[in-house]
Amino acid sequence: MFLSIQADSDFSIHNLPFGIFSTRDRSARVGVAIGNAILDLYALAGLGLFPEIDPQVFQQKTLNDLIALGKKTTTALRLDLQRWLQEDLPLLRENPAAFVPQAEATMHLPIEIGDYTDFYSSIEHATNVGKMFRDPANALLPNWRHIPVGYHGRASSVVVSGTPVQRPCGQVKGKDEVLPQFQASARLDFELETGFIIGKATAMGQRIGTAEASEYIFGKVLLNDWSARDIQAWEYVPLGPFLAKNFATSISPWVVTMEALEPFRVAGPVQEPAVLPYLTYDGLQNYDLNLFVELQTSRGSSTEICRSNFKYMYWNMAQQLAHHTINGCNVRIGDLMGSGTISGPTPDSYGSMLELAWSGTQPIQLVNGSTRSFLEDGDTVTMRGYGLKDGVRVGFGAVQGQILPAIC
Amino acid sequence: MFLSIQADSDFSIHNLPFGIFSTRDRSARVGVAIGNAILDLYALAGLGLFPEIDPQVFQQKTLNDLIALGKKTTTALRLDLQRWLQEDLPLLRENPAAFVPQAEATMHLPIEIGDYTDFYSSIEHATNVGKMFRDPANALLPNWRHIPVGYHGRASSVVVSGTPVQRPCGQVKGKDEVLPQFQASARLDFELETGFIIGKATAMGQRIGTAEASEYIFGKVLLNDWSARDIQAWEYVPLGPFLAKNFATSISPWVVTMEALEPFRVAGPVQEPAVLPYLTYDGLQNYDLNLFVELQTSRGSSTEICRSNFKYMYWNMAQQLAHHTINGCNVRIGDLMGSGTISGPTPDSYGSMLELAWSGTQPIQLVNGSTRSFLEDGDTVTMRGYGLKDGVRVGFGAVQGQILPAIC
Repeated sequence: MFLSIQADSDFSIHNLPFGIFSTRDRSARVGVAIGNAILDLYALAGLGLFPEIDPQVFQQKTLNDLIALGKKTTTALRLDLQRWLQEDLPLLRENPAAFVPQAEATMHLPIEIGDYTDFYSSIEHATNVGKMFRDPANALLPNWRHIPVGYHGRASSVVVSGTPVQRPCGQVKGKDEVLPQFQASARLDFELETGFIIGKATAMGQRIGTAEASEYIFGKVLLNDWSARDIQAWEYVPLGPFLAKNFATSISPWVVTMEALEPFRVAGPVQEPAVLPYLTYDGLQNYDLNLFVELQTSRGSSTEICRSNFKYMYWNMAQQLAHHTINGCNVRIGDLMGSGTISGPTPDSYGSMLELAWSGTQPIQLVNGSTRSFLEDGDTVTMRGYGLKDGVRVGFGAVQGQILPAIC
Repeated sequence: MFLSIQADSDFSIHNLPFGIFSTRDRSARVGVAIGNAILDLYALAGLGLFPEIDPQVFQQKTLNDLIALGKKTTTALRLDLQRWLQEDLPLLRENPAAFVPQAEATMHLPIEIGDYTDFYSSIEHATNVGKMFRDPANALLPNWRHIPVGYHGRASSVVVSGTPVQRPCGQVKGKDEVLPQFQASARLDFELETGFIIGKATAMGQRIGTAEASEYIFGKVLLNDWSARDIQAWEYVPLGPFLAKNFATSISPWVVTMEALEPFRVAGPVQEPAVLPYLTYDGLQNYDLNLFVELQTSRGSSTEICRSNFKYMYWNMAQQLAHHTINGCNVRIGDLMGSGTISGPTPDSYGSMLELAWSGTQPIQLVNGSTRSFLEDGDTVTMRGYGLKDGVRVGFGAVQGQILPAIC
């Protein structure tokens, strides 16, 4: 291959994720990441490489129209690109317009999100939260092992990696206080998640069985479900999190296709008690994807504060989608479904500061000597993730966001 | 006026709500209801009546582009129509293409909804639910008088009046059962609500104060928040209602502008304890709108089962919007915000069957002699509402939906 790709690149020839980028000279359009470069699909369309696809599909501000062509088309497109790159197709090799260095590109929110749903599918996370806030002896709620619990989040405030996140203001109430106070959140947190994007719509009344779920999932991103724990504690009974979450949710800009993630399928945990028939599934439905969270202070010092893995999830995506649609709820192309915080079994694998610092009782040590119980102004949270098997590496790049001070 | 409008018409000259309609000969387009007719705004644009507006704005499947022109433009347009109708403008009177009988039109979902939020702002409703399911002595949760509690609902399954609603299937668990069962919901309910539609977007980080809320609200609809109580009871702790609600939400097709509702402003209830400063407001922020729910059995017999009023709301729309954005959460044109179930102080004014039949302990008597604790297959729920003051009547028409049997 004429392109040189570092061995530890997330964007290997096996990946080829889709995103939306622009540069000084190029308006927003569809790109595919390869190594440190971006293949400009609109430019390639102009070279006649995709004769069966309307070139306008590639000159869009989101991937929705491309995804709407269907998996057969987008999969074939991706395989063509893979072959052309491996064969050093002259049209690519000799055409500088076909490539853009990633360093020169601005990445955009890749999807127009219809609805955003967030699940709560890590048993370690749900157990940790239950231990801290409810009953340590009965940490898991009675429904947890029966239902892939989920709730609706806010689509309007989903932003692309790099977008700063302002610390929210809101109502908080201390345990011993009579009245709530209005103030900046003092317990601002991240949640390490992945998200999947719906690639095929259903009509109301239609269900998606676990066996057909893969037809409906286009690809995945990293997701940071920013959370204001003090606002959440006061507001969430009985209707769930609202202002504690809807001020911002960040996703990574490259949508990694499910096909690229195939090598990383692994078995999920045994589910006990047995799930209801509509939640049973065949095959390997978990994915071995290494996940990392790094916290950088405003002075630049960086600490890796979490190593987790997507394989730990109790409920898998096929079950989440089967559950979401079992009542006939329809899905649309571009809907985003978050996994819920991905915590592993060990304390260094917990996917939120709430858990890592155990509700502030065990502050995290940073390499610069300072500590953190929750996020401080100027902190930057970066999440990364990749699968690696038999030398095949497929990664997500990063989702990053810096905390700006509140204006209350 | 050349049009004859019945005195009890919801669509008086004072109303002029906007909607999207089509007929056998006319593709989907913007209309304005007047009496039993619809003014075809796309046809009127063709007559040159709106020289400053791109006619394409009127030939759309939703009102979003029209609303995006801004309240100054849409208000002027509505006042022009009002004047022309009152003056018997020859261009209208002599042009049959300008009008369509409502009976010949199909109404469509009027809005492309970005995010759908549902509040919980009736103190009677929240108290009734608390009495039935929690502690009768402490029915209201501690946060209720401080927060206009809300949660995110599902935008994809918001449908226009007339769309049938299939009874959902899902997990339910009886109090004395160890394991959940999968079955058709046996406690299917309606919730009488109104919804408001966002008419002006904000950026992330921006707040809408109560004093400026009216700039951001385009208009209102009736809303039926269909609810499966048995699914809800099992799933809703800790993240709120999900499958119990997201199978369908129905709205009325005509969006009544806030300007048309001005005559019906009234004072709201005294709020004790005092709300936080960001929730304080000036002026009359409640609305005296009579609301009715009718239940029609599959055999055709109809019973009015609820008379309520929007004026009973504890939290008003300005407070809801101020709260929703106090953390910087952005809103977009077309966002839908539901009021929450509108229950009044008397048992006949409760806005859900759960309350009217007190969780099945006091079944509702229907005029045909049968009773209902929850909705049965074939039942049709119709909600209507209007303001009436000094001879000025402004109404919503109806939101209606029939229950189809489950397929589990």
